[in-house]
Amino acid sequence: MPTALPLDADRLWADIMALSEITEPERPYTRRSFSPLFLKGRAWLAERFAEAGLAVRIDAAGNLIGRIEGKNPAFGVITIGSHSDTVPSGGRFDGIAGAAAALEVARALRDAQVRLDHTLEVIDFLAEEPSDYGLSCIGSRGMAGALEARMLDMTEPHGETLRAALRRVGGNPDCFMSARRDDIKAFLELHIEQGIVLESQSIDVGIVTSIVGIRRIEITFEGAADHAGTTPLALRHDALVAAANTVITVRRVAEQLAASGSDYFVATVGILNVEPGAANVVPGRCRLVIDARTTNPPLAQRFVDEVERESERHAEVAKVSRAPLVTLSDGPPAACDSTLRAMLRRSADELGLRVTDIASGAGHDAAFMSRICPMAMVFVPCRNGKSHTPEEWADRDQIAAGAAVMLRTITSLDQSPPRAGEGAH
Amino acid sequence: MPTALPLDADRLWADIMALSEITEPERPYTRRSFSPLFLKGRAWLAERFAEAGLAVRIDAAGNLIGRIEGKNPAFGVITIGSHSDTVPSGGRFDGIAGAAAALEVARALRDAQVRLDHTLEVIDFLAEEPSDYGLSCIGSRGMAGALEARMLDMTEPHGETLRAALRRVGGNPDCFMSARRDDIKAFLELHIEQGIVLESQSIDVGIVTSIVGIRRIEITFEGAADHAGTTPLALRHDALVAAANTVITVRRVAEQLAASGSDYFVATVGILNVEPGAANVVPGRCRLVIDARTTNPPLAQRFVDEVERESERHAEVAKVSRAPLVTLSDGPPAACDSTLRAMLRRSADELGLRVTDIASGAGHDAAFMSRICPMAMVFVPCRNGKSHTPEEWADRDQIAAGAAVMLRTITSLDQSPPRAGEGAH
Repeated sequence: MPTALPLDADRLWADIMALSEITEPERPYTRRSFSPLFLKGRAWLAERFAEAGLAVRIDAAGNLIGRIEGKNPAFGVITIGSHSDTVPSGGRFDGIAGAAAALEVARALRDAQVRLDHTLEVIDFLAEEPSDYGLSCIGSRGMAGALEARMLDMTEPHGETLRAALRRVGGNPDCFMSARRDDIKAFLELHIEQGIVLESQSIDVGIVTSIVGIRRIEITFEGAADHAGTTPLALRHDALVAAANTVITVRRVAEQLAASGSDYFVATVGILNVEPGAANVVPGRCRLVIDARTTNPPLAQRFVDEVERESERHAEVAKVSRAPLVTLSDGPPAACDSTLRAMLRRSADELGLRVTDIASGAGHDAAFMSRICPMAMVFVPCRNGKSHTPEEWADRDQIAAGAAVMLRTITSLDQSPPRAGEGAH
Repeated sequence: MPTALPLDADRLWADIMALSEITEPERPYTRRSFSPLFLKGRAWLAERFAEAGLAVRIDAAGNLIGRIEGKNPAFGVITIGSHSDTVPSGGRFDGIAGAAAALEVARALRDAQVRLDHTLEVIDFLAEEPSDYGLSCIGSRGMAGALEARMLDMTEPHGETLRAALRRVGGNPDCFMSARRDDIKAFLELHIEQGIVLESQSIDVGIVTSIVGIRRIEITFEGAADHAGTTPLALRHDALVAAANTVITVRRVAEQLAASGSDYFVATVGILNVEPGAANVVPGRCRLVIDARTTNPPLAQRFVDEVERESERHAEVAKVSRAPLVTLSDGPPAACDSTLRAMLRRSADELGLRVTDIASGAGHDAAFMSRICPMAMVFVPCRNGKSHTPEEWADRDQIAAGAAVMLRTITSLDQSPPRAGEGAH
């Protein structure tokens, strides 16, 4: 780790800690998108943006944006950022480290009296985490033109529509497509790894190769909710027996695919509902949600095909019926731009940092941004791979090192010639 | 089926239908113990008891009792009954058929101007079904002396204690042990089978041989709630993988034990909780509740031993920890009295009914009553074995036939000499 960085690690760290104080007191660290605390956090961020000399606005998709004009506006906009919302009982770094790092990059440029040719925007994307409205990455979807009108009709448990909520946080649902951008030259995002690869290998900075595609599948087994005392085993239609066998199948197939080559593959059954869920009643209905992630879409299809075939067999053996598989979501993987990756690696090398390539198993706003511009990501280590929990922790100097890589890359990028086809990305 | 029965099948049926009208309107058929509807149902029953010439009281354990003195009170008390409470979204017959049949037996005796030597009591036991206080068979426990002071401290979700609830329904928690009886010569209970044996074999009446013992075991697996995207499979501690393998083990071992001899054996995983239960989080904690029932206690022990061993192995493979098994309850099986069974069979034969011996896979108030007196049960068929559901259905004439078997048995019993050791049961 170098001893001197071209930015203020303490100031960056102080921002992260200050933002972490804005939390539900009984449930740290919680700052759910659209909540009053979220708006309080954003008001705090907007003040910091303004202090850094950025012009602050909220776009139609509800993204908080701080902007400083470049000397040559025609060069396009370099964007950096992440998100300030959290999951319930989440951590202090997921999203926040990237938003604060982006702010620190802008401040460091100002401190060094560097004025870029490109316009620079620091972005706090709206609602990256799954929101109470059932949608994640709302702001980056909007900026990428991937927000759809029907999504604005989604509601949270009390009945508020996403349309109303978006208006409440300063967005403009009536013309949300105006948030779509075609003037962005590049997007860079810093994020904690949320895994243990960097820490276990004592690496300072991970250069993300691609962000996994996430496929979510729902499987429902329908049996018969019979009396657990009076129904002989041979006469049962036990939905949980089929569901349990399917959980085993998901793990087995995932292990085979992960071992079959160099592509990243994981699959998880994170939700299993049992109805009626009483000790003395044979389970009549079970619902599983399977989350499969890979950088290689054909693997996801092979996985789903085999789970479909095997789960049908498990249903037959348990004498229950299996509804057709429901695809809840199917996001493609997003490759990081090779030129940006090379620039990030060179910057890290020049700063004397230990660096490696790494696939991102988690989704990020950057995946949506890749639809409209070259995109790359920097991962910094986090302790024990813990994320989405109050235990989540990252090192002050490692966050600063990641931010310094971004800063150095942005100054290089500012001097690089426009690439062929750049405007038409 | 005989054409003429010594009781009024229509009147008995009308009572069952009338009681079924006293239900939560949006959730038929629900009359939860201790609820205002339960009290309304009991008030209705108490009126019918009084009309039948019975002296009505509620004992310290909250049982509704209608009593008619015998000519020779020293002979002891013959008791018949069941329960009028239901599970949520239950049926019209479970418990109710037995309570109404008991009432009809008393009415038929009165109509025939028969006065027994024995005192007769018709009992609606309090809260046979699992109550909101976490306890079932509250009234029959009390009558058997098996209610314990600590149980009165149990609370329902809003915080009311069972002690307060018992007082509210007319019981006396301050001297609940006074409900314990030592004057009962016999207890008979009619109940729907809650299974498909009688119907599938076109049998009118089942004479219960014994009521299964029920053992409930809780198993908890503790893993780590890691990110489902960033945690490679080899580094996971997935509690659901261990739990799913345990579900499979429970089914396999239960099938082996059921096939190993003539003893009744069933086991069920009816509850499986997954925490945190989010699509993108590896399950960190799973809790299973296993319900095992058999007429032969050593089989239950073999079952628990094998599940304990296998679940530990599943925990090791999944790299999670398994807490020691918790025994939630362990009720021994209850044998029906052989003399009473023979009398019931003779009565059925004399009435020209098709009859068979049958084990009860469900628990009943009769199991507690067997601790203080000779006990026997009559099962009547129910459609498709359905119970604990609004679909539950039983035939008017088959219920009446079962009641007639009880009536005939009671008149025989009234004339039978006291048996050796009867008072000391």
